[in-house]
Amino acid sequence: MADQFVPVLRWEERPEGPVLVLLDQTRLPVEEVELVCTDVPALVAAIRALSVRGAPLLGIAGAYGVALAAARGFDVADAAEQLAHARPTAVNLAYGVRRAEAAYRLALDAGTGDASAAAAALTEARLVHREDAEASARMSELGRELLDELLPGGRLRILTHCNTGALVSGGQGTALGVVRAVHQAGELRRLWVDETRPLLQGARLTAYEAARDGMAYSLLADNAAGSLFAAGEVDAVLIGADRIAADGSVANKVGSYPLAVLARHHRVPFIVVAPVTTVDMSTESGAEIEVEQRPGFEVTEIASPYHSDTRGEAGAGLTEQSGAGIPIAPVGAQAYNPAFDITPAELVTAIVTERGVISPVTRENVSGLCSTSRKGTSRSGDGMMNP
Amino acid sequence: MADQFVPVLRWEERPEGPVLVLLDQTRLPVEEVELVCTDVPALVAAIRALSVRGAPLLGIAGAYGVALAAARGFDVADAAEQLAHARPTAVNLAYGVRRAEAAYRLALDAGTGDASAAAAALTEARLVHREDAEASARMSELGRELLDELLPGGRLRILTHCNTGALVSGGQGTALGVVRAVHQAGELRRLWVDETRPLLQGARLTAYEAARDGMAYSLLADNAAGSLFAAGEVDAVLIGADRIAADGSVANKVGSYPLAVLARHHRVPFIVVAPVTTVDMSTESGAEIEVEQRPGFEVTEIASPYHSDTRGEAGAGLTEQSGAGIPIAPVGAQAYNPAFDITPAELVTAIVTERGVISPVTRENVSGLCSTSRKGTSRSGDGMMNP
Repeated sequence: MADQFVPVLRWEERPEGPVLVLLDQTRLPVEEVELVCTDVPALVAAIRALSVRGAPLLGIAGAYGVALAAARGFDVADAAEQLAHARPTAVNLAYGVRRAEAAYRLALDAGTGDASAAAAALTEARLVHREDAEASARMSELGRELLDELLPGGRLRILTHCNTGALVSGGQGTALGVVRAVHQAGELRRLWVDETRPLLQGARLTAYEAARDGMAYSLLADNAAGSLFAAGEVDAVLIGADRIAADGSVANKVGSYPLAVLARHHRVPFIVVAPVTTVDMSTESGAEIEVEQRPGFEVTEIASPYHSDTRGEAGAGLTEQSGAGIPIAPVGAQAYNPAFDITPAELVTAIVTERGVISPVTRENVSGLCSTSRKGTSRSGDGMMNP
Repeated sequence: MADQFVPVLRWEERPEGPVLVLLDQTRLPVEEVELVCTDVPALVAAIRALSVRGAPLLGIAGAYGVALAAARGFDVADAAEQLAHARPTAVNLAYGVRRAEAAYRLALDAGTGDASAAAAALTEARLVHREDAEASARMSELGRELLDELLPGGRLRILTHCNTGALVSGGQGTALGVVRAVHQAGELRRLWVDETRPLLQGARLTAYEAARDGMAYSLLADNAAGSLFAAGEVDAVLIGADRIAADGSVANKVGSYPLAVLARHHRVPFIVVAPVTTVDMSTESGAEIEVEQRPGFEVTEIASPYHSDTRGEAGAGLTEQSGAGIPIAPVGAQAYNPAFDITPAELVTAIVTERGVISPVTRENVSGLCSTSRKGTSRSGDGMMNP
């Protein structure tokens, strides 16, 4: 059960000052190693090395990072800038950073002093954290209801990509949170887990969460998803998102878009689960989303957490030239390695957020979602399938 | 250049008797290690372990395997049976086996004696080998002409999957043979090489051939192909085939079908290159093609030729339970691991064979292709685009 996990992230007050303690996700599923960040550069390195990862969790980490800089007397504006740009695609990261920074500034401008401003940043980070847990619970509920509606009768075979569970969230996660709710309701027949090359978040992390929760799951090479669709073995695809543009385009882990095309070809629902903080109304369309290009060695080498050469401190050995992984290609091979891809709105059956479900996914419905009051539960237009 | 390769397969007369020497493809691109087969069980093990692989080469290996059994005085019928069923999907394997076996039987029935019958089997194996080299050269020529016709102007960006080059052929290969011809004509802008999980034939073998030939190529995680299509960076997809059913359905390396769906979605030509021996008129439709299910450890572990634990004799450590690779998933993870998938004819733009090109790919055109005389060059119906 997720409750028995080593916490993915926690704030700790130590005699020498506060620290942010992260579960190093690059070491899973082999061992539960914690990374202790005493300053923002260490946290930025952990974010870049994917020791801490996943859109919602990045937002939480970013907020705590600002609180850490404030508590330790570092330059908060500089820390916020570094954190917000540690990775370019997930908009939640900047969102979390900005909220903690704004709380810090407000307190500082009110003249309450540095210590109180730092406390305000920490309070805000904790609020971001708690809100994410609440959003996660609500998405799980709404997602399960949506599946009930689309696919009555249960016993679902759900395909997922990357990792979107308790490891990326203050709660149970986004897409995998919904899967967990379906599983707890006894309605999960099988979870198909894409291994998610190049960094194998499915094989390492989703399989780890699925196994812990006792789900019936099977791992597959990403290439084999097509065979499952063709055999009629997929009832729905559930994925998370790193950014949703105003037109409803979804940036998510590379390999999501091919699944959306396959799902459309086979008339299988393709459902995105993400908190409202993932929506970036300032990004007009999918074409404007910056897609992070990561180093080629992630493709030409394989970093297995079971392999000793790939162990080390967060980011140790991770350079632009070479990782510390096991080579699988000829020496000198060049690789194309986008971390994300963009799925256009017309291929997305529904977007599940904590404020409700939109379907069809249109600019109008996305806009309606974002203008709904945070606490509101009123129906907002035809596209809102849930309160 | 391919000419400098260690031969992928050769017959050698040694004082202690003839042997079949194979380049162990599981060790590429790290080292060019040869495997010496003195009997059929060793060859069957090498086929199962993918030390020798690729539809056309399997046909050649199967034919030499029969010749080896005959020359060494083993039971030829039993050897033929073992070889023909070493792997279920590639029809070329059984084709090569049956040709050598038929030549052996014919000689034996003619009363020429065991030694002459064995010599007849070897002569036939050599003929299968030479015919494949000739077919390869002809397919390269026809494939390049087809691309010229479909995409005039050259400077092509071609996406390929798995390995279909000189390593699988008596000549330059099938799909990669066409790419090589395009490259030699100065018309290749870039070769996009899918890494081809789980066994990484793209990363290990196609990258190795592309690098040797000085092609501009980039490796990618299979998941990233969708991003290339979306960016308009793919002019054509070229793949090989392990079996083509009478209705034109194509069985090929898992991951081919998702590419076909993406290619259709983006209106990019999807071209299959395979010798006529790949067509199995006795298989009515794609649904009848037996797809080999391989052990789950190929997905839950990664066998890198650079990693010492994965080295060994052909097939050493390859059991149903575990390979000798590096784990990437939780202990006990189950995996779904089909080796091939089926692309229906309607998603295939054209099939290039040594006897001509068929497009559209229909049952009638496939039948027309197979009824064309082997040496004939006459146009056979509207679907035959080339002599």
